[in-house]
Amino acid sequence: MVATDEFIEEAVERIGEQIGDSNAIIALSGGVDSSVAATLAYEAVGDQLTPVYVDTGLMRKGETEEIRETFSFMDSLRVIEAADRYFDRLEGVTDPERKREVIGDQFIREFEREARDVDADVLVQGTIYPDRIESEGGIKSHHNVGGLPEVIDFETIVEPVRDLYKDEVREVARELGLEEIISERMPFPGPGLAVRVVGEVTPEKADVAREACHVVEDELEEYDPWQAFAAVVGKGTGVKGDNRVHGWIVAVRSVESRDGMTARAQEIDWNTLQRIQSRITGENEDVARVVYDVTHKPPATIEYE
Amino acid sequence: MVATDEFIEEAVERIGEQIGDSNAIIALSGGVDSSVAATLAYEAVGDQLTPVYVDTGLMRKGETEEIRETFSFMDSLRVIEAADRYFDRLEGVTDPERKREVIGDQFIREFEREARDVDADVLVQGTIYPDRIESEGGIKSHHNVGGLPEVIDFETIVEPVRDLYKDEVREVARELGLEEIISERMPFPGPGLAVRVVGEVTPEKADVAREACHVVEDELEEYDPWQAFAAVVGKGTGVKGDNRVHGWIVAVRSVESRDGMTARAQEIDWNTLQRIQSRITGENEDVARVVYDVTHKPPATIEYE
Repeated sequence: MVATDEFIEEAVERIGEQIGDSNAIIALSGGVDSSVAATLAYEAVGDQLTPVYVDTGLMRKGETEEIRETFSFMDSLRVIEAADRYFDRLEGVTDPERKREVIGDQFIREFEREARDVDADVLVQGTIYPDRIESEGGIKSHHNVGGLPEVIDFETIVEPVRDLYKDEVREVARELGLEEIISERMPFPGPGLAVRVVGEVTPEKADVAREACHVVEDELEEYDPWQAFAAVVGKGTGVKGDNRVHGWIVAVRSVESRDGMTARAQEIDWNTLQRIQSRITGENEDVARVVYDVTHKPPATIEYE
Repeated sequence: MVATDEFIEEAVERIGEQIGDSNAIIALSGGVDSSVAATLAYEAVGDQLTPVYVDTGLMRKGETEEIRETFSFMDSLRVIEAADRYFDRLEGVTDPERKREVIGDQFIREFEREARDVDADVLVQGTIYPDRIESEGGIKSHHNVGGLPEVIDFETIVEPVRDLYKDEVREVARELGLEEIISERMPFPGPGLAVRVVGEVTPEKADVAREACHVVEDELEEYDPWQAFAAVVGKGTGVKGDNRVHGWIVAVRSVESRDGMTARAQEIDWNTLQRIQSRITGENEDVARVVYDVTHKPPATIEYE
């Protein structure tokens, strides 16, 4: 890559040429890739671009509020409250691939409605280089939710960071002055907390996963993991006071990786693990157990579903 | 307790008086408590005692073979192959308490049939002191399967080790020359591997739990845990070769405890955990992940269900 400031200057100019007088739209996921793509495009064409953020109910703790704040400079930002619609459609869905499909499909519905509303001809996307490779390899459904271009007709697709690796995107984010919380953010999967809930995704399980993820991100920051999170894997027995209870089993995962294609489970200090389990079980009385994932990728995936 | 040899002598004499000329029966579970009670009673009355071992399909790896061998000196030993009947009744049962009930009830059916067959008037049981306390406290269903005396009518109940603690029972076992594998055995729950399978108990899940338990017992012997085992907690995604798979999530648990009423998760060396995960995922290609339980009791129970 050329120098970062030079990259930005050239990218903004090229995006301006690509969009021209058209209306453009971009899906903001809260991740660094789409945040950078949106900011570059907004610099190029201002309110001709409509950034759309869909709150699926499967976002990180505090994420929607952070998005509103970070992108408050974009007057055209739309925040769509869609949690109820997602949970309705996820009822009874247990198969991992099917969950991804439902979420992707609902996303397309939400996004298509907004695209029609603003009469958008151009789609801006935060696709980065490893996304393209992994998608071609067929290892998993493309994690930029939806596969939008295949189902919604746009005249032009603009992908300002398509040739960058993750660390290069982060560099651009810092140079653009995007909040550190976004530029240093760990990868967060497209389907959100749905891949951190084994089996059916319910509002209750999403809440347990969201709070537990927050604890894990907080406690493991110093380990500088590629990705660290918590997942709800099922129910098991516990004891609260003198009573037997049937509570959630929460798995904690923290991995080192260069590119996400393979990964190693991180060795975490016992006292840290104890602090994590004590916070997670203490803050939520419906959690009975905390387990730490010691499996590499392969044979496990990084995410749970 | 008095000296061990003295205890044995007195116990055998007392059992002989209690049983007299009647026919007696005892359920051998494979655990040290019932093994000691059976051996004491057999010394007292010989083949007037019928020891019944029910293979529920939920036993430890190699357990049935070990029982046959260890108790080959008892001509009256009966080994009942009942796995199919247990799995039939467990189909679709997911509630932990209901699983225990079904297993307890099936056990009673198996045992009652044998008791009628030998016309037994006396029931010998391996109840020990902490069992009586925990049962009274209502923390869980009595873990000596079944609660036999409440449902089958016996004229006399004989409980030769009812006043002993676990370590005292082990001492008696060693003095009686019972195989070390039994006298040093970790506590194994009455419902067997059913409490090491979250949700429905199937032959496949029982097999995964059995093999994984074997690995854990083998690898963690040097940590001298109160109890160490593996449980099947659900399914999650994994990668084998270039393919996404949906494989079992196996939880490993190892705890320190004085009496089982409370327990602490043991700190296990990272290399040992890695050896365990690699053996468990390597020996069974349907296992995608291994997690280590870092929760104490309370808030978790020792077992999973």
